[in-house]
Parts: sequence; C-alpha cells; structure tokens
Amino acid sequence: MFLTRTEYDRGVNTFSPEGRLFQVEYAIEAIKLGSTAIGLKTKDGVVLAVEKRVTSPLLEPSSVEKIMEIDEHIGCAMSGLIADARTLVEHARVETQNHRFSYGEPMTVESSTQAICDLALRFGEGDEESMSRPFGVSLLIAGHDENGPSLYYTDPSGTFWQCNAKAIGSGSEGADSSLQEQYNKELTLQEAETITLSILKQVMEEKVTPNNVDIAKVAPKYYLYTPAEVEAVIARL
Amino acid sequence: MFLTRTEYDRGVNTFSPEGRLFQVEYAIEAIKLGSTAIGLKTKDGVVLAVEKRVTSPLLEPSSVEKIMEIDEHIGCAMSGLIADARTLVEHARVETQNHRFSYGEPMTVESSTQAICDLALRFGEGDEESMSRPFGVSLLIAGHDENGPSLYYTDPSGTFWQCNAKAIGSGSEGADSSLQEQYNKELTLQEAETITLSILKQVMEEKVTPNNVDIAKVAPKYYLYTPAEVEAVIARL
Amino acid sequence: MFLTRTEYDRGVNTFSPEGRLFQVEYAIEAIKLGSTAIGLKTKDGVVLAVEKRVTSPLLEPSSVEKIMEIDEHIGCAMSGLIADARTLVEHARVETQNHRFSYGEPMTVESSTQAICDLALRFGEGDEESMSRPFGVSLLIAGHDENGPSLYYTDPSGTFWQCNAKAIGSGSEGADSSLQEQYNKELTLQEAETITLSILKQVMEEKVTPNNVDIAKVAPKYYLYTPAEVEAVIARL
Amino acid sequence: MFLTRTEYDRGVNTFSPEGRLFQVEYAIEAIKLGSTAIGLKTKDGVVLAVEKRVTSPLLEPSSVEKIMEIDEHIGCAMSGLIADARTLVEHARVETQNHRFSYGEPMTVESSTQAICDLALRFGEGDEESMSRPFGVSLLIAGHDENGPSLYYTDPSGTFWQCNAKAIGSGSEGADSSLQEQYNKELTLQEAETITLSILKQVMEEKVTPNNVDIAKVAPKYYLYTPAEVEAVIARL
Amino acid sequence: MFLTRTEYDRGVNTFSPEGRLFQVEYAIEAIKLGSTAIGLKTKDGVVLAVEKRVTSPLLEPSSVEKIMEIDEHIGCAMSGLIADARTLVEHARVETQNHRFSYGEPMTVESSTQAICDLALRFGEGDEESMSRPFGVSLLIAGHDENGPSLYYTDPSGTFWQCNAKAIGSGSEGADSSLQEQYNKELTLQEAETITLSILKQVMEEKVTPNNVDIAKVAPKYYLYTPAEVEAVIARL
Amino acid sequence: MFLTRTEYDRGVNTFSPEGRLFQVEYAIEAIKLGSTAIGLKTKDGVVLAVEKRVTSPLLEPSSVEKIMEIDEHIGCAMSGLIADARTLVEHARVETQNHRFSYGEPMTVESSTQAICDLALRFGEGDEESMSRPFGVSLLIAGHDENGPSLYYTDPSGTFWQCNAKAIGSGSEGADSSLQEQYNKELTLQEAETITLSILKQVMEEKVTPNNVDIAKVAPKYYLYTPAEVEAVIARL
Amino acid sequence: MFLTRTEYDRGVNTFSPEGRLFQVEYAIEAIKLGSTAIGLKTKDGVVLAVEKRVTSPLLEPSSVEKIMEIDEHIGCAMSGLIADARTLVEHARVETQNHRFSYGEPMTVESSTQAICDLALRFGEGDEESMSRPFGVSLLIAGHDENGPSLYYTDPSGTFWQCNAKAIGSGSEGADSSLQEQYNKELTLQEAETITLSILKQVMEEKVTPNNVDIAKVAPKYYLYTPAEVEAVIARL
Repeated sequence: MFLTRTEYDRGVNTFSPEGRLFQVEYAIEAIKLGSTAIGLKTKDGVVLAVEKRVTSPLLEPSSVEKIMEIDEHIGCAMSGLIADARTLVEHARVETQNHRFSYGEPMTVESSTQAICDLALRFGEGDEESMSRPFGVSLLIAGHDENGPSLYYTDPSGTFWQCNAKAIGSGSEGADSSLQEQYNKELTLQEAETITLSILKQVMEEKVTPNNVDIAKVAPKYYLYTPAEVEAVIARL
Repeated sequence: MFLTRTEYDRGVNTFSPEGRLFQVEYAIEAIKLGSTAIGLKTKDGVVLAVEKRVTSPLLEPSSVEKIMEIDEHIGCAMSGLIADARTLVEHARVETQNHRFSYGEPMTVESSTQAICDLALRFGEGDEESMSRPFGVSLLIAGHDENGPSLYYTDPSGTFWQCNAKAIGSGSEGADSSLQEQYNKELTLQEAETITLSILKQVMEEKVTPNNVDIAKVAPKYYLYTPAEVEAVIARL
Repeated sequence: MFLTRTEYDRGVNTFSPEGRLFQVEYAIEAIKLGSTAIGLKTKDGVVLAVEKRVTSPLLEPSSVEKIMEIDEHIGCAMSGLIADARTLVEHARVETQNHRFSYGEPMTVESSTQAICDLALRFGEGDEESMSRPFGVSLLIAGHDENGPSLYYTDPSGTFWQCNAKAIGSGSEGADSSLQEQYNKELTLQEAETITLSILKQVMEEKVTPNNVDIAKVAPKYYLYTPAEVEAVIARL
Repeated sequence: MFLTRTEYDRGVNTFSPEGRLFQVEYAIEAIKLGSTAIGLKTKDGVVLAVEKRVTSPLLEPSSVEKIMEIDEHIGCAMSGLIADARTLVEHARVETQNHRFSYGEPMTVESSTQAICDLALRFGEGDEESMSRPFGVSLLIAGHDENGPSLYYTDPSGTFWQCNAKAIGSGSEGADSSLQEQYNKELTLQEAETITLSILKQVMEEKVTPNNVDIAKVAPKYYLYTPAEVEAVIARL
Repeated sequence: MFLTRTEYDRGVNTFSPEGRLFQVEYAIEAIKLGSTAIGLKTKDGVVLAVEKRVTSPLLEPSSVEKIMEIDEHIGCAMSGLIADARTLVEHARVETQNHRFSYGEPMTVESSTQAICDLALRFGEGDEESMSRPFGVSLLIAGHDENGPSLYYTDPSGTFWQCNAKAIGSGSEGADSSLQEQYNKELTLQEAETITLSILKQVMEEKVTPNNVDIAKVAPKYYLYTPAEVEAVIARL
Repeated sequence: MFLTRTEYDRGVNTFSPEGRLFQVEYAIEAIKLGSTAIGLKTKDGVVLAVEKRVTSPLLEPSSVEKIMEIDEHIGCAMSGLIADARTLVEHARVETQNHRFSYGEPMTVESSTQAICDLALRFGEGDEESMSRPFGVSLLIAGHDENGPSLYYTDPSGTFWQCNAKAIGSGSEGADSSLQEQYNKELTLQEAETITLSILKQVMEEKVTPNNVDIAKVAPKYYLYTPAEVEAVIARL
Repeated sequence: MFLTRTEYDRGVNTFSPEGRLFQVEYAIEAIKLGSTAIGLKTKDGVVLAVEKRVTSPLLEPSSVEKIMEIDEHIGCAMSGLIADARTLVEHARVETQNHRFSYGEPMTVESSTQAICDLALRFGEGDEESMSRPFGVSLLIAGHDENGPSLYYTDPSGTFWQCNAKAIGSGSEGADSSLQEQYNKELTLQEAETITLSILKQVMEEKVTPNNVDIAKVAPKYYLYTPAEVEAVIARL
C-alpha cells in the first residue's frame, strides 16, 4: 500500500509512512564516514581524543582541527563534515560569550549544548543562520561547570544525551564496546588519557603518532595537548 | 477514478480525495515508534510515568529527559521526536512566563495546551517559529490550576483532548486497555503511582529500574521523583 | 484531449479543464468523515446540536468541544478537522471583539461569518494568518442580532449561505431530509431542541447520552446546555 | 514537434506553444458551470437579473446573493465561484469609497471596473491582495455616472468590455441570442425587466419564482427588487 | 545528445541547448492570434489604425480599446492580450507623468518606450510590478517630441525598434508587404490615413465600418478619430 | 554511473557530475546566433564595428543599436539578446556616473567591466537587479583611461578577458582567424577601421552599407560614426 | 534498497543514503578541469605559480588573472571557475580591509581563509552575498603574519587545510607527487621558485613562457613577478 522507502528520502523534511525522517538518517550516515573521536568523563575532568586523517605529508597536521575550544570551560571533538562543525562551534562561541557579557558568569555546559542543538534542528527553515539541509556532523562536548565535569553527545537530528563515555565516527562501534569494558567511575585523568588513546589506536589503520591524533582535556579549563604531551601519552601505552 | 493513496502522501499539506492529510498521519506513526508514556489524573493531582530507553550503560540516565517542567504548576511527558518536543516545551515555557508577567497569575493548563497546539498546527507556513513539517511528537500535559488537576493529550495534528488517563508511544494500545480497567475516580496519588508504573512494567521489554523510568507528579506543583523515590514505587509493585 | 481528473487534483489552487478546484472539493470530503452537527432556527432563537465521538471512557467528554462561543450573541457547531475550526473561531473572536471595541456595539452575525470566510478563502497565499491548504471544516454559525435570530452554513471554499435548518458531517444527508420534513416556521425553541436531538439520535450509531452529544442555543445569548439539561431533552424524546 | 495541449495546462501562468494561457481558459470554464445572469442597458438605466440555485427549501433565498451593490451608483451580477466574486466586490467597494473620500465625488463605472480587472490580472504574483490562481468568476457591472447608464462585462483574464446587453453562466449562449433579437435602443426600464426575466425563464430548468431569481436596477441608484416586486414582474410575463 | 525541443519550453526563463528562450517565443505567438494593428510615420506625424473584433452587436464598439493614449504626445496601438497591454500602458502613463512632474517637460518617446521594455523584460523575477510570465502583447508606440514624429515597435522579449511603418497581429505578414510597397518619405498625414486603412481592409475578413476599426494620430498631439472621422476616411478608399 | 548530459542541463545553477554548468553554456550558444561584432585595439584608440540585421526596409537603421555608450570614455558592442545587453549597459552607466560623482574622476575601464560581470554572475539569486537566468549576451567593451586604450570581452558566465582584438557572434570564428592574421601593434586607427570593416564584410551575407553596419571608436572619447563616415570607410575597402 | 547514486545528485543540498553531498563533489570536479596552480611555503615566504591558458594570441596575457592580491600580506592562486573566485577574493578583500579599519592591524591569514570558507559554505541559503550553488573553485592562499609565512588550501565544501606545499587543478596529481619528493623545510625562496616552475612545466602541455605562467610571492609582502622576472626564473630551469 505504501511506496518503497526510496520515494520518501529526498524531501529534506518529509515523514515516511512509518514516521521516519530519512534525510536526517542519511546525515547520520555521513558521520559514520568520519574519523573516530572519543570522549571520556572522570571525576576530575573530561578527556577528548580524535584521529586526524593527514592525507599528505605536506599537510600541516595542526591545521586539521577536530578538537576545538568553545569557551574556556568547554571544548568539543567532532566527526563528519568539518565545515558544518565549524558553523555550530562558531554559533556556540557567540552564545557563550553573550552569556558571559549579559550575566557575568559562564554558560552551563548543558545550555550551550542546547544552543547547538537548537541550530541543528532548525535546518530547512530559511532563516539567516540555519542550513538548508541537516548538519552532517556529531559533536562530543566536554565541559566543566558548577555541576562538575560533563560530557554531551549531539547528533544531526538536534538531539543530545549526557554520557560518561562515548565514541563517534567510523570506528565508533568497536570503540564504544571497549569503553564499556574499561570505564569505571574512579578513573583518574591520566588513566582516561591512556584508555582513550589505546582505544583510538585499536580502531585506526595507521600507527598512532603526535601527527595523526589530538588530545584535549577540560579539567576544569579547556587545554589542547602539545605534540610532546601527546607523545608522552603514546609512550605510556 | 482517483490515484492510489501513495500519490498524495508526500505533499506536507495536501488533501487526498477522501479528505485526509497523510503527512500528519505519518507523523502520528512516528509516535508509535517512541517509548511509552502514561498519565493518570486523580482528585489530588496527576501522575506521569515514562519509559526511558537508555541504550548504553555509559549514557547518563538523567539526561534522557522525557518528562519536563513547563511552569511550576504544569509538566509534560512526551513520546516521539525529542528534539521536536523540546521546541514545543520551550514555546510553552515562554508563553506561561509571559502570562505570569503580564497578568500576575499563572496561565491555565488549557491555555498553555492551546498555545502548544497553535504552534503544532502552523507547520509548513514559513513563519519564524513554525516547522516545515508536522511536529513528530505527542505530549501528555499534566497541570493544576483554579479548576483543580487536569490532564491533556496532544497529537501532531494540533488537536488536544482532556483525559482522566492516557498512554502514548509504542506500548499505548495495551496500556490504554489496562488504564480503563484500573481507573476509578477515587484513586489516591499513591495508588496512581503504583498503577502507572505497573502498567509501564507490562509494556516494557526490560526490567523496570530507577534508570529506565521517570515519574513526576503535579500535586499541585510539578515534582520529578528522585531515583530513590522511583525505587520506592518499584518496591511497592 | 484533456488529462484525466487525477492529474489536476494535487495543486492546491489549480483549475481543472472543466473549471473545478479539486483540493477544495477534497477538503469538503474531509467534512463527510466528521461527526454530525445540526442547526435549527426558530423565531425565538437558534438551536445547535452535535454528536461527540468520545473514543475512550477515560476521555473527558467536556473537552471534546464541537460547539464553541464566538461572541455572547454568536456560537457555532463544527464538523471536520477540529484544529482548523479552532483557528477560524479564534479569528472570529478577535474580529468580533475588535468590532465591539471600535464601534461600541456587537458585530452582526453576517459580518462575522464573512470574516471567517475571508480567512478560509485566502489559503495558499502565504500571509501570516492564512493556511497553506484549504481549511478542512464546515461551520454552522448561530447568532442573534438586530435582525433577529439567524443561522449560517460555511464550507471549505469560503462560501456561506443563510439557512432555516442545516446538518453537516457524516450523517448530514439523512439529517437534512428529516429536517425538511419536520421544519416549520412556528417551531418553539423547546420543539427545536427535541427535533434536532431526535434527528441526531437517528444518525448516530451509539445510544444518545449527555456524554456524547452537546446542545447549545443562541436566544438571544449563547448558552451551552449542562449535562443535566441535555439529559432532560433526551428524556423528552 | 510540440507537446500536446495537456502538457502546458497546469502551470498557472505558462504560455503554450500557440501562445495560449490554459489556466485562464479553464477558469473561464468555471463560469459555464455557474447560474445564468443577464444585464440589459436602457436609456433610463440598467437592469440585472440572475438565477439563484436554492438547493434546499431550508436555505434562506435572500442569502444566495448573486447581485451585490458596489457603490450607490454601481451594482453587479455574477456567475462562477461566489467566494471569488465577493473578494472582487469587496475590493471594488474599498476603491469606490476611497475615491469618494479623496475626491468628493463618485468613481466612474469604468474606473471601478478597471480596478476589479487589475486585481483579477495580478493572480499568481504573491502580493497581499492577489490570488494564487485566476479568479473563477465573471461579473456584469451595471452603473450610472456622468456619462449616463453603462454595463460592463469582465472575465477571468482581467479583460472587460462595455455592452448594451450580455448574459453569462450556463445559459448564456441561448440568452445572448435572445438578447440580440429583442434588444433595441428605445427600450424602457419596464420593458427591460420583462425581457431579462422572460429570457432567464427560458434558460432555467425550474419554474421562475421570487425565491429563485433576483432583479436589480441602477437607475440612477442601485436598487434590489423585493420579492413582491419580482412577483409583479413575473406576473407581467 | 540534446533533449528534444519540447523539454525546454515550459520553464519561463530557461535556455535551450541552442540558446533559445521558448516561453518568450510562445508569447510572441500569442500576438499572431491578435487582431491586426498598423502604424505609419509621416513627416507631419504618425497614424495608427487597428482592427476591432466586435464579437456581438450588443457590445459597445468604443469599449474595445486597442489604441490608447500614454501621454498627450504619445499613443499606442496593441495586439495580443489586452489586459497585459493595459498594465504596460498604465506603467508608461505613470512614468511619463512622473517625468513631467520632476523635470517640467515631456518624456521623450524613446525613454517611455524603454520604460515599457524594462518592465516587459523583468517577468519572472517576483518584484511588485513585474509579471510571472512574459507579457503576451506587442505595441506600436507613436509619438512626437523634440526629434519630431517617431514610431516604435516592442515585442514580448522586451526589445524595441524604431520604424517608418509596421504592422502587428494576425494580418501582419500581408500588411507589412503592402506597407513596404506603398511607403515613401513624402507621404502626407491624409495619405497615411488612407494607406493604413486600405491595408487594414485587405487583411480583415469583415467589411470595414466605423464600428470595427479605430484610427488615431499623433501630430503632434495624440488624437483618437470620432466614428464620423473614421467614416470619412473609409469614404476616401 | 552518471546520468546522461541531458539530465543536468535545465537547472539554472546546477553542476553536472563533470563539474559543468550547462545553462551558462547554453546562454553562450545564444551569442553564436547573434550578429557579428568586432573590436580592435590600436595604440591610438579602439575601433568597434558591428553587423546590424535590418530585417525590413521600413525599420529605422539607427534604432538597431548594437553599439552603445557607457560613459564618455567607454563604449561597447554586443551580440546576443539585445534587451539583456541594455540591462547590463544601463547598470554600467549608473556605476560609472556614481563613480564620477563620488570620486570626481572617471571609473577605469576594468572596474566598469568588473561591475558588468558582477551583475552577470549573480543570476538566479533573486535580488532586485539580477536576472532569474544567465544574461544571454557577450560584450566587447572599448575604453580609454589612465592606462591608455583597452578592449575587454565578457561572456555570460561573468568572466572577462582583456584583448588586442576580438570578434563575437555568428561570424566570430572566421573573423577571429582574420584578426590574428592582420593584427599588429603598430596599426593606426584608420587601418583598424579598414581591417574591422573588411573582416565584417567577409562574414556578412549581405552587401555592406551604412544601413547595416555601425562603427564607433574610443580615441580617447567614445564616438559613433555618422552614415557618411561609415560610407567613407566602405569606400576605402 | 536505495536508489542509485544518480537520483540524489541534482538537489544542491541533499544527502545521499551514504551521507554524501554530490553537488559539492561535482563542484570539486570543476576544479579538475581548471588550469594547474602550485603553492610552496619556505621559511622566508610563500611562492605561488599558475598556468595561464591564453587561448588566443590576441588575448592580453596579463588580463588572465589567476593570482590575485587579497591584502598586502596575503595573495591567492586559483583553479576552477574564475568568476566564482573573484567573488570570494572580493569578499576577502572587504573583510581584511574592515579588520584593518576596526583593529588597526592586519587580519591573520587563517581568519581571512575562514572568512572565505564561511561564504563558500553558505551556498543555497538565499542571503545576499551567497551563491545558489557551490562555488566551483579552489584557492591556494599564501600569507605572512605574526606566525610567519603560511599556505592554506580551500575547496568548494568550505573546508580548509594548512599545507607546506600543494597543487590544484588538472595537473595536481602529478604535481603533488613531485612536491612531496622535492620539498624540505630548508628551501630558500629562490629554490622554491625554481621547484614550482619546473613542476608546472612538467604538467603543462605547452612550452613555458612569461605569457602563460604567473609567479607571485608573499615574503612578507605580496608581490607579482614581472614578465622579465618570470623570464629569469625560466632561464634557471
């Protein structure tokens, strides 16, 4: 009685007879093509680690930015379309700055996550800031506020969840299993560094070097590791 | 003489020859894919209970919010697309706050339900707040105002009804039957807690724990149960 | 030489080669799926009676509103998409209030009917208040002004007629025949109550109770009957 | 070399290879489905007569308005979609009132006819007052100004002509022939009444009664005949 | 390698692979369906003559306006869709009036022709005055300014040319040949009247009468001939 | 794996899988249907010569304008859709006038060429001045500024090049070859006149007369040759 | 279960089921049709070299601009649609000028690269500056700021990377390999000139002359080489 699935999947914002939104589901597929990113929350702070695909030896590794600062107490790792992620991050930066200016205090991590998802949900509506298609990117948002450290995961549908640990991107399935095995609430930040990098190593095809991974922490401020510091973590594996 | 059904169901706002709006009907299907939520009205207040699908042990259960406060005297449970629900709830929060500010008294539960349905009906019209498709979510709106406790049910068509008890989501059919059997006007709040949770238990595939259900009441203020309080209700089953 | 009918019926506002507007005709079909409503004008006032489909015993019958007040001298019964009807009624309420404010006297029944039809005709034009499809609802508008009692009937094309008696909805065909047999100009209000309810009874599948019908009159003020008053009319059948 | 006619006829404003606008031609078809209306100009004034299709004995005949006043010196008869005609007439009323207000004198009949046609031509352009399709109605506009009595005929393409006599609607073909036979410049108003009504009688399927025809004159003011006055004209036939 | 012609001809503003704009070409076809109009420039002024299709003896011949005044020194004859022509003429009237008001002198004939073509070119662009399709009309614009008499010819593509003589409409092919044979620079206005009318007579199917042709001149002011004056020209043939 | 070429060529601004924009390429075809125009730069100034297709002896040759002045130091020759060219030229005239007004000095030839190409590139974007399709015209822009004489060539893609000599239109292929053979840097203006006209003569089907060619120079001011001056150049061939 | 690739590739901003954006990928193809451009960063500055396709000996080589200045410390080389590149460069020039004006110091190279990519990402959104399709061009942006020399590479998706050396356009594949072989961090500017030109020579079909290549450096100011200076580099090969 219904058309086959294929007939409903090109309208950016049309329900199929089963109540599904295919363009959003396809955008979620875009993330499965992306490089792997991992976030892990400890009682002392959150660690983010990402694989960087440096396709040419002439490429400047530091310019492949897959971890970015949102505010001094919030950072995020991303997987999917990097240009889309930049738009979301830029939006969050403006929102957190405005909040500081208006209220004299930092925005909570949840509020800034909500601000990102509000923009992600508004695709296809033609107003100034929104896109004409879903944003093809997932974010792991790490932060530290009055409620302590927290880690959020967003997807292209504009939904978000709070997690203790989460992997996104092409290696996320295997990485998520490893995270569940290795996670416990008493992990130190240093243990978290080791765990995230060892899991990243498992799902990457290449050898891990300071050139093709980035590590950052929010504890309680956002801090991106130098190549030497990444090297040190690699050495501990 | 007419085309088959399938030819009319992709225009977001087109009547079929029989006078039906298929995109709205498909959005209603989206709710049948959602987790189950139950509302039950007693003379002392209203109880809401929802199933939370916590897909990973690393997910923070409290971040899977399926019951939300609208105003201090109104809360709602939801089933369907959570990001859509957030937009409707945020709209209702603004409306109820404006009402308090302008009139110095809380908005009635019916008026705030009407405000949500006005937004839901306006999809496809291109103004600032409205969506380009129907909202894929149903709400159970519980509240308490000068007329005492009340429970409303909204669907994606922008229609609402007042109920004594109602279930939405994937388990709604079985849950509605159970509610009809067990409902009477003299139920106490505590009995309502037990009934809603026992019915939720029947339609859930997993064992009920404080991690995968939420309970809230409006009696006469909105209150979300702590995990310990949920545990206590589970213990009574 | 022409395409078959089916090729013209999806454009919301396109003429077929015979000069027909199919989307409007399909919206008229939506009313034939609705519950039955009856209006009957007497020299002393107008009686409206509607069938309410209370699909569950847990639904609050009074929240299934199919008769609504527009102004203190005007009320209406509806059949079709209830959310659409609410938009039209809300528009008429604003218009009648504005008229009272501007001119210090009530709007005539015909003018407020015209205001409703103006909005209904403007579908598909993209301005703020109008819909992107025809309104899928018919109204029976009962009122009392300086010209005495009057009853109007509107359809989705934005056309209206003045009637002595009229039925709309799924049972309208049989009900209209009965109205023609039983109508005369000398009916009292009480006789009108009995006639409309007895005709409604014939076309309803269920037994008539105060829960599944509503009765209202405008004589000369709008008044919705209490369940007890409905019960009394039922008793007279 | 060209597509068949059918491929060009759904775009509301697209030329076919022969230079035709089919949607306008189809709107003209809509008038052939309408009831018959006749206008006849004499040296003393203009007579309009229309068939009213009163589909039910419970319908108020006076609410089936097919002759309407535009200004005190202009009236019009219509055939086709009545709701469309009301929009055009309302537009003309505003224009003539504005003219009186701005210039202190009545608008000429030609100018108000032009105002109606300007609106009719602008369909499909998305501004505030215009329709998204052609107006499916023809008007016979009767008036009396400094140039004496005049009769105009408009069609959905936004074109107008001045006539001595003209019939529109389903019976227009036969009625036009009869008008040509019976018209002469020396007719009195009373003779014009008799002629228009006798021609209307020929093309109507039902017996002519004060309930199913309306007569109006502009001589030099617009005047709609009472049922008794219509009865008197019928008696003269 | 290319699609056939038919695939490119419905987009109002799309090039075919050969670089053609078919909708404009089809609008040009609309003019070939129109009545014939002829313009002839002499050293003393310009003569315009048009065929009027008076389809019924009850039609007022003077209301079939195919020659219109733009300003006191400019007039135009038209062939094609008359309602489209009125829009262009009204636009030109506003432009010439504004010019007089701003500069205290009449607009040149070329500038007002350019103003008409600017509007004609802008179709399909959605601004306020422009049409959503090409204007289906050609104009012969006759005028007299500081450069003496001039005659312009415009087509639906928004292009214009200056001519000594030109015919448009269904009989244009034959009429153009006759004009080339009979034209010389020393013609008087009276000879021009005779030539244009005799050529019009050849291409018309009916006998020429003051009822079915109109003649105007701009010498140096626009002047539309009375029926008696037209009769006099007919008498000279 | 890809669709054939034909599937991508109707969207006005859509890339084909090979990265081509077909609508722009088709607009370039429109120029190949146009009359031939030639530009030739010498050290003393630039000569432009165009073929004029005077289709009727009654057409005023001077009104077939294919060479137009932009500012007193810039002129252009065109091939393709003349109405499109007028829009571009009018835009350039406003820009150069504004520049003079704002800076008290003439705009450079390159800047005004850039201004034309900016407008040409913006098609399909819906703002006020831009077209809904590519401009179907090429220009040869001749000018003289502080850098001496210069000649630019623009195409529908909004790209421009500076040339020493260039031909456009239906005869451009042969004319370009001849230009390459005959061009040298030491040509005088008079030699340039002779060369351009002799090449134009080769590619035209008709005999060259002052009626069917136009010549202009910018040396250093724009100057359009009188028919007598054109005759003199013809005499030198 | 999915449609073939071809069904998703014409919507400018639609995801395919695998999460790909084909229109962006096709725009990237447009660059592979473009002429080759090479950038090479040394510790003393950056060298850019491009192939110019001078299709006719009458074309002014200097007007085929494929290297352009953005600010005095930033320049860029381009491959693909030149008119698109001009829009991006013009945008960057305005941004860098505004930055100087507002902050009294030059914009960093990364910020101006980000400004270009923001515009490139916004295609299809209908605001004033953005395009209705992806920009079909890649840029090599060379600059020198407080962080020393830098080289960025942008593509039509709005993504950018920092590189030590990079080639774009039709010969990019071979050129990139050569660059990887010959690159080392200690290269002098003069060695960089020789390397880029020798690689360009390998991938060009024609003999290298000052007419068909351009060279520029940013060291630390932008400087475009004169033909004589290019000749000198050629001589060193």
